[in-house]
Amino acid sequence: MTTAPLRTAVVIGCGTTGTSVALALTGAGVEVALVDDDPRATAEAVALGAGTPWTPERPPADLVVVATPPSAVVDVLHSAQSRGLGHVYTDTAGTKEIVASDAELRGCDLKGYVPGHPLAGPDAAGRDAADAARFADRTWVLCPYETTPEWALETLDALLAACGAQRLDLAPHVHDRVVAELSHAPHLVAAVLSSRFADSSAAFLGLAEQSLRDAVRTAGGDPWVWGDVLAHNAGPVADVLDRIAGQLTRAAALLREGDDSAPFELALTLEQGRRGQSALDDTRDDLRTPRDAPAAGRV
Amino acid sequence: MTTAPLRTAVVIGCGTTGTSVALALTGAGVEVALVDDDPRATAEAVALGAGTPWTPERPPADLVVVATPPSAVVDVLHSAQSRGLGHVYTDTAGTKEIVASDAELRGCDLKGYVPGHPLAGPDAAGRDAADAARFADRTWVLCPYETTPEWALETLDALLAACGAQRLDLAPHVHDRVVAELSHAPHLVAAVLSSRFADSSAAFLGLAEQSLRDAVRTAGGDPWVWGDVLAHNAGPVADVLDRIAGQLTRAAALLREGDDSAPFELALTLEQGRRGQSALDDTRDDLRTPRDAPAAGRV
Repeated sequence: MTTAPLRTAVVIGCGTTGTSVALALTGAGVEVALVDDDPRATAEAVALGAGTPWTPERPPADLVVVATPPSAVVDVLHSAQSRGLGHVYTDTAGTKEIVASDAELRGCDLKGYVPGHPLAGPDAAGRDAADAARFADRTWVLCPYETTPEWALETLDALLAACGAQRLDLAPHVHDRVVAELSHAPHLVAAVLSSRFADSSAAFLGLAEQSLRDAVRTAGGDPWVWGDVLAHNAGPVADVLDRIAGQLTRAAALLREGDDSAPFELALTLEQGRRGQSALDDTRDDLRTPRDAPAAGRV
Repeated sequence: MTTAPLRTAVVIGCGTTGTSVALALTGAGVEVALVDDDPRATAEAVALGAGTPWTPERPPADLVVVATPPSAVVDVLHSAQSRGLGHVYTDTAGTKEIVASDAELRGCDLKGYVPGHPLAGPDAAGRDAADAARFADRTWVLCPYETTPEWALETLDALLAACGAQRLDLAPHVHDRVVAELSHAPHLVAAVLSSRFADSSAAFLGLAEQSLRDAVRTAGGDPWVWGDVLAHNAGPVADVLDRIAGQLTRAAALLREGDDSAPFELALTLEQGRRGQSALDDTRDDLRTPRDAPAAGRV
């Protein structure tokens, strides 16, 4: 893999993702300029050593990383390209189909823009700290357009190398279905499950087992960030939610029928659940060594 | 709290729960006799130091613990009482209303029987090992009948003391609603979620985040044990499943409508989920020091 020179970068959005990317780039010797609507966020990222505040007199950077929520990406991208902030652009939003097609509809310069998504989401409050190693050994999805030139991808390869991430190219709609299944719908399921306990007494909740706390931990994530993500992946997420709701409704009906075969039929669902749990657990190591993942190239 | 002498016990059922109870009793100096339909299970428990195999010539024990799945408890209890195996009886099944009322209908001796449930369920394969400390500092629910005499409860207090558990008295139907909310319904939700991945490729599952693995870990539990438990708590579990399914269906509809207010309305659900997650996490320490739990006495 050849890597284009990556000497300067602008990171727009100093949340956990943007600051983590900036820290990794700075650590790799890239000169990073930071932008955020909130000057406190910029100051915090600067204090962490993620870079210096962006100033208008800078020449165009080799790379501009738009690390805003999905709903802001295209506006920010269009504005940054209009102002000539850099040569190559990417974003880190957790949904890709709307972002990639809106960028096209809005008239962004697609030659210099590669939609992307590093797979290490905003899980819970406790994992929100920016970290140069946040994406190390993790998969980083890119959604190049048919027309994306090789030089733009080389710059992205240099970004991923600086972050230690593994590249996986996916079509935007495939990416969105994958994250709907593995992340977005499960997040909403956890939130619905834990929402039942919002007003419960400590005496009642003290009877819960650790497995319930583990099951709903992801629901501790920022509601506004997640609301935005879910709304931008509405169709795929709704499909998964409807299917899960249907299975739960069928299980409830089976229980209410009180047929002697209920334990047996439930055990079939539970056995399939155990197989899924086991399959998921078996791939734990793949998280760190995703060599079994499809090779770069659209799937 | 006075504790009755507890010198001898019979434990029927050498699964994780029964063997753990037997280990704790043996550790407390109680002479424990072990029974299981499966001689290998008995032999394994004996090998762990949980006691010695039960033999018919023994005099009635101070306590008989029926540690079978819910569907077998009343048969085993009735048979054990008919044979005069002990003076006081309890069980450890995860559901209580059907067990407690069936014991009454079946004509078991209710004076000597106290339905019970130690709250440390069969979470996942990894937690299935028998352990004398399995119930230490955990809540142990008792469901005494109106007519249960004090001497029977004193023997139970001695059992709980040997296991290091905290007693919480609940009416059977209250117990069943509590565990439906905190354990049984969440277990089925996890199983339904993970059942989607039973036939997924490793490449796909390798893209999952740790939070998903944590969310479905409980689904690794024994399908037959759980099928039996769920079928014995059918009504309360079905109620919770229906409500969760309804919330998921509404969230899906909201997403499909694609209204501009969708992110806002989703954020309200997500915020309630975050509050519930936080409330649940705040009671983590109560697990080990459940002093805020309702005092012994029916609630």
